Amino acid sequence: MTPRKATYSDEPTRVQQLIGEFLTGQSGTSVGADGLDVRLTAGADAKDDCAVYDLSSPMSLVVGSDYIRGPKFVLYEMGLLSGFDIGYYLAVANVSDIAAMGATPIGVLSVVRYPHEVDDAEFQEVIAGIHQGCTDCGTLNVGGDIGNAERIILSATAFGVCKPGSALMRSGARPGDLLCVTGPCGLLGAAVAYFPRRDTFEKGLSDEVERRLLDGWKRPRARVAEGRILGTKAYATACQDTSDGLKATIEQIMHASDVGFRVVEEDVPVEPAVGMVADLMGVESLALSMSASSDFQLAFTLEAGKLEKCRAEFALAGLDFHVIGEATDTGRAESVNHLGAVRPLPGVAWKHQKSDISLLATGRVEE
Amino acid sequence: MTPRKATYSDEPTRVQQLIGEFLTGQSGTSVGADGLDVRLTAGADAKDDCAVYDLSSPMSLVVGSDYIRGPKFVLYEMGLLSGFDIGYYLAVANVSDIAAMGATPIGVLSVVRYPHEVDDAEFQEVIAGIHQGCTDCGTLNVGGDIGNAERIILSATAFGVCKPGSALMRSGARPGDLLCVTGPCGLLGAAVAYFPRRDTFEKGLSDEVERRLLDGWKRPRARVAEGRILGTKAYATACQDTSDGLKATIEQIMHASDVGFRVVEEDVPVEPAVGMVADLMGVESLALSMSASSDFQLAFTLEAGKLEKCRAEFALAGLDFHVIGEATDTGRAESVNHLGAVRPLPGVAWKHQKSDISLLATGRVEE
Repeated sequence: MTPRKATYSDEPTRVQQLIGEFLTGQSGTSVGADGLDVRLTAGADAKDDCAVYDLSSPMSLVVGSDYIRGPKFVLYEMGLLSGFDIGYYLAVANVSDIAAMGATPIGVLSVVRYPHEVDDAEFQEVIAGIHQGCTDCGTLNVGGDIGNAERIILSATAFGVCKPGSALMRSGARPGDLLCVTGPCGLLGAAVAYFPRRDTFEKGLSDEVERRLLDGWKRPRARVAEGRILGTKAYATACQDTSDGLKATIEQIMHASDVGFRVVEEDVPVEPAVGMVADLMGVESLALSMSASSDFQLAFTLEAGKLEKCRAEFALAGLDFHVIGEATDTGRAESVNHLGAVRPLPGVAWKHQKSDISLLATGRVEE
Repeated sequence: MTPRKATYSDEPTRVQQLIGEFLTGQSGTSVGADGLDVRLTAGADAKDDCAVYDLSSPMSLVVGSDYIRGPKFVLYEMGLLSGFDIGYYLAVANVSDIAAMGATPIGVLSVVRYPHEVDDAEFQEVIAGIHQGCTDCGTLNVGGDIGNAERIILSATAFGVCKPGSALMRSGARPGDLLCVTGPCGLLGAAVAYFPRRDTFEKGLSDEVERRLLDGWKRPRARVAEGRILGTKAYATACQDTSDGLKATIEQIMHASDVGFRVVEEDVPVEPAVGMVADLMGVESLALSMSASSDFQLAFTLEAGKLEKCRAEFALAGLDFHVIGEATDTGRAESVNHLGAVRPLPGVAWKHQKSDISLLATGRVEE
């Protein structure tokens, strides 16, 4: 194989030639939705100190920032994720927080810092990933900060708008509300659990299943359409994305809303690939599905009386969700199986540095 | 000396105990100005996915992100800047971009990542600096992202609002407009030029002058009040902060506006401490004042007919600015001295990795 000849441009060249193509023609774009009139009057193509939006009516603005590990992240270091994948993930991770508020994303600012040895092709790949992630979320990458550093650093900020007062908080769940989730969780956590241990299993998973496991990292989806339905029509009483894993998310909504939750174990959707990893590891697939992961599903609560109407509106948009339990007044997060046996929520909740999916395998699944 | 006993808390503890004190009671704060009704309905104290603002009338929203080098930054590595200083600088650097748009800052999101060996006291110092920087700029730190990484990483996003359509761009300067700056530039660049070479000078500068040189880094000021006057009353035709140094700023406004500039050399304010560093280095003080630096003055252009009214309004607020030249139709940035000699703008403009203040001393001051 002939090695690719690496080119390392200076930053002004990178900005103009490698990023420029992604950022032309932004200014003037309408980026609102749901009757909110929002126009990007100066995007990254305006090359000014800031991006500028004109907001023509009262609205709520939501803003959030997420840093991603990128390098030093095990799947990237193993060569399983590319620069494009990491850029894509960065954009979607940030937009997901906007979706969780029930808002429409109006833009993403990104910080991309890189060491000298990152050549132009690799740098452009990261930018292309950010760009595609924004596009797939229906929003714009409106600039930010690029420059050198002694390692790759990726961080971003997303912002969105919704009708005044309609932002979905974590704190609105009431006893009796239904607990719902837009889809199965745990895929990204299962990938992190599986790949570094792959050689220790007698027989690994098929290429197809391995691809599926990586797909959650490579092309995650922010639930923007789902969040918008939940927020615009005030269906959800509380909402949060599952980027800490389903168990942690349920516990966080529980604490913010001062309620309890009882999850019906058989109603929690389990992704088949997650089930296969659980089998290999000798752990419960429900526990792995609910453990630390970085999926971008939405977990939300719903007044029981609104279930049919909400489900119908999801269906109209080609979407669906799962009712997995209900809010209680116990102050505890627990699950019940078809035999009526009640236990604390299975799985290992994300607790910053402390969580480790391997705790599942050692039987130390409770904190 | 008894070494301080270091404490390293986990992240949830840091969030609750070390950051919590800075973030209580934010939600509900009114953060607008100039007749713009903006209320922070969910700040960092709401501990949700995002911060939420209610914007009650049409307005322009401006957003920008800046990463700062922090560690690997020479003055920090030399122990001349503390964690508090770096946090403070991060906040002000980001707010400065909002000021340059003539907008009122309504919040800052920050990303603070740290390695395990950063103890609680050091971590809290950085957060305290960010908090104080926001407070001194009249804005709020509404959260962001904290967590571990293998080194300290500091990044932030600031956002602000202004009357619809009143954001100050770089592109509005017209030939005949006056070129102005809110104060002397080059202090931060002079500090970077001086301290690493301090031991090579036969006699260094006095403690007082050294303190003054560091002061620009330790307690920079974003020109929020100045920007607001320039934007709200539409005095400025173009505006940019001088965070790349005065020469680069003038050249960037020139390119964005498609004009030229002629600077009157004797009218450019020079900070005495910068003059002393220039003398020590054997370079021209005007050149050092205009070279790569990270000051947060505002450079702006003004229709000549509005000069007196604008100056009067600045004076009412206890503020002032300097007229240092005018926009031309030559497409060149040049300066003229009292003898009528014309030359390209002195100094070394910031060009990402390529700029080095030492070029001044080698005589390679032109690109």
